[in-house]
Amino acid sequence: MSIAKTGNIPPLDPAAAEPFYRQIYDRFRGAIASGLLKPGDRIPSARALTEELGLATGTIKAAYSLLAAEGYIQARGQAGTIVTPGLKLRTPAASAMPQSAGVVRTVSYRPDSILPFQMGLPALDAFPRKIWARLGARCVRAMQASDMAHPSVYGLQGLRAEIAAYLHVSRGINCSPSQVFVTSGYRHTIELIGHALLKAGDRVWLEDPGYPPTRELLGHMQIAAVPVPVDREGMVVAAGVKAAPRARAAVVTPAHQSPLSVSLSLPRRLALLDWAARNKAWIIEDDYDGEYRYVSRPLPALKSLDRDGRVLYAGTFSKVLFPGIRLAYLVVPQTQVERFEQISQAFAGGSPQLTQAIVTAFITEGHFARHIHRMRKLYAERRELAIAGLESVLGKHMRIDAQPGGMHLILRLQGKQSDRRLVARMREEGLYAEALTDWKMAGGSASALLLGFTNVDSPAMAENLGRRVLRLL
Amino acid sequence: MSIAKTGNIPPLDPAAAEPFYRQIYDRFRGAIASGLLKPGDRIPSARALTEELGLATGTIKAAYSLLAAEGYIQARGQAGTIVTPGLKLRTPAASAMPQSAGVVRTVSYRPDSILPFQMGLPALDAFPRKIWARLGARCVRAMQASDMAHPSVYGLQGLRAEIAAYLHVSRGINCSPSQVFVTSGYRHTIELIGHALLKAGDRVWLEDPGYPPTRELLGHMQIAAVPVPVDREGMVVAAGVKAAPRARAAVVTPAHQSPLSVSLSLPRRLALLDWAARNKAWIIEDDYDGEYRYVSRPLPALKSLDRDGRVLYAGTFSKVLFPGIRLAYLVVPQTQVERFEQISQAFAGGSPQLTQAIVTAFITEGHFARHIHRMRKLYAERRELAIAGLESVLGKHMRIDAQPGGMHLILRLQGKQSDRRLVARMREEGLYAEALTDWKMAGGSASALLLGFTNVDSPAMAENLGRRVLRLL
Repeated sequence: MSIAKTGNIPPLDPAAAEPFYRQIYDRFRGAIASGLLKPGDRIPSARALTEELGLATGTIKAAYSLLAAEGYIQARGQAGTIVTPGLKLRTPAASAMPQSAGVVRTVSYRPDSILPFQMGLPALDAFPRKIWARLGARCVRAMQASDMAHPSVYGLQGLRAEIAAYLHVSRGINCSPSQVFVTSGYRHTIELIGHALLKAGDRVWLEDPGYPPTRELLGHMQIAAVPVPVDREGMVVAAGVKAAPRARAAVVTPAHQSPLSVSLSLPRRLALLDWAARNKAWIIEDDYDGEYRYVSRPLPALKSLDRDGRVLYAGTFSKVLFPGIRLAYLVVPQTQVERFEQISQAFAGGSPQLTQAIVTAFITEGHFARHIHRMRKLYAERRELAIAGLESVLGKHMRIDAQPGGMHLILRLQGKQSDRRLVARMREEGLYAEALTDWKMAGGSASALLLGFTNVDSPAMAENLGRRVLRLL
Repeated sequence: MSIAKTGNIPPLDPAAAEPFYRQIYDRFRGAIASGLLKPGDRIPSARALTEELGLATGTIKAAYSLLAAEGYIQARGQAGTIVTPGLKLRTPAASAMPQSAGVVRTVSYRPDSILPFQMGLPALDAFPRKIWARLGARCVRAMQASDMAHPSVYGLQGLRAEIAAYLHVSRGINCSPSQVFVTSGYRHTIELIGHALLKAGDRVWLEDPGYPPTRELLGHMQIAAVPVPVDREGMVVAAGVKAAPRARAAVVTPAHQSPLSVSLSLPRRLALLDWAARNKAWIIEDDYDGEYRYVSRPLPALKSLDRDGRVLYAGTFSKVLFPGIRLAYLVVPQTQVERFEQISQAFAGGSPQLTQAIVTAFITEGHFARHIHRMRKLYAERRELAIAGLESVLGKHMRIDAQPGGMHLILRLQGKQSDRRLVARMREEGLYAEALTDWKMAGGSASALLLGFTNVDSPAMAENLGRRVLRLL
């Protein structure tokens, strides 16, 4: 690995319409597209480039954060920042088309068909499709003229009330329906929060390792991610306080940390709430699978402890129903209701009336509670059989983490095996996996596969899949 | 009206975490909430405040554009900038709750129920609801496991292909399905364009008068609106070139200008395309109702003349089907496909699979083309009968503009009548209307009502409604 000389990069133009950060971004992108910078090459540190170009540190950091968000470069902690290894430009003649030189992402990969071990999917075979179809047909036939006009941008009143009631019973959250905003998914939720409460240049704590799309989305919004390590008690709040005490927000997955599946301990929950209250910072609780805990009852949400109105609770129907419905929600503190109403008026078009009507009926008639109850039981079983099947075949090469809940397994690779390389091979063979390394931001090595187990329905299937992985080692 | 002294405003704090523009915004908001500044009061010009505070012009402009976007202040051209007349703060104790001091909007009002003359709604009684219900029930019953996973964030492939084929035949646009991105509505479309091609501080031409939500949305994205006047040939392109030759984009409604309903003339279309090509600027063509032209065949879209790949075409199903489905689309130039794929990966969650499947079936089976054909005929009739009914009652007080197409009427008020005051009275009486004044940005007076006619289904209904308006004059 060589350190790229910035002499390779064309000089910046102070008279150009493009701001400097964008020029720097474009020049690195061009240098990568044309092959001047190759995957694995080290690039100058933000500090070195700041001194060399005589620009503000923030300018360089904005350019780097955009490059990182789009997958061009990766920060490797002490080892510096490098051009993403394995980066492939989509077009062979990329240098001739700098505008369209895209990158093939290695994380958050969404295949065209459903693959074994795919993450983030509920058990598709166990969904009560007949009930759903019956309710759906009923709702579409019942459509009145008033259902055809613009739906409320906050969400259907009936659905907001059902969500508030459900959160009270199942997650220990006391909120009124007016605090609930229906969104079209987690990304939309984060975007609304960004518009309402954050601004370009803000710093936000993110769990490290953590869900890559959050980082990417914030990067596009020019919000700087502060990686905060995760240990057996979840996010190390003290490390966050040390790294960025004045950060504007923290994104956490308290129920089952994404992806390590540990739960945020009570002392950490209290420390986080205390930090937020003192600094008037926001806590964004991503409770994507809080229901799916197998060792004991689901823990109440962090939001249930929120005395100072600092927690924004992000829930979704993607995991407890299915992702194709594109329906999620956000609970905001009472003091922020009007702000979110304004922002929803400006940005949100509302979710389709039909989708909301079907989900409302599904909850009202008790199917939702029954379905979650059944899935909790089913996932506990599938997790056990997936672990048993995989261990019987791969036990010598991998160690499976014990976890209290969640919808995926973590298989730690032994020795110096690269999780990224194995994941690439598995995808070539039509098997899904994500590499823990791709979920990391700052240094520290941890080579592991993340595998969804919710659609593994027999020990034989688990063993078969395990054998297919074994052949790729 | 007095000019507010900035002495009323607490001093700025250079050490605060909030940037200056935000501090200025907060202080004006606080001053309005506490009554220090009253509706109608003039506030200092951006230039005067720039000099007084010794800050950059951009800082003041950013603060003012945010205040204007949220409805606190209004630019009145030569007459200066004033606190919005009639502004009502929602909470009586607003000054005690600066965080939640919202404003009651007077524009883009969305009532809870459907009111006579409501704008932006198709004829709800004429929608083929039985066919829709049949297709809907069929699609929800046909749902497979693969339909339950995340839908493509670009849109279902079948729907993108149907849209491309429809645009070719009906709007003269040649594009491949990969250039079509399905969105959840016009606001979502504009947001994607903003993320992909614009940045905070950019200037964008907007038609004046023009659709208020566009202005509001761009304001929230810190993008400065440049008002460009509209005459009988549509946007006065030369005025835009004069005011902001280096603007990054222009938003236009070429088919029927929103709200004046004039069509952009061919010389203006060519001048606009020429300006965009020379300046590498973007043209955002909002073709919300291009199908609904009654005097001749629908004009081809501006996009059909786009030789240099500068036009982004925004279409929607809200008007040709109904708003409650939340489905729209964007056609991007071939060179920008990868950029929009990246941005969609980061921001878009995709639209519900079911909605997309129903619309795809509706188009494939020919219902869509038939429905548009029927509605064009129906709206031509309803427009005539609405004009006849309203003129017979209100003819002495108002003059109705002749227009080639669109879904609303423009009733010019005689004398010094205030359209805003009349609209407020009509809403109290359960009648919908919008005031042309609320659609204006820069100076120039034009007092007119905007009334949706698509749900006025008989001469008697038009006369009855006209008499209800007459009593309010």
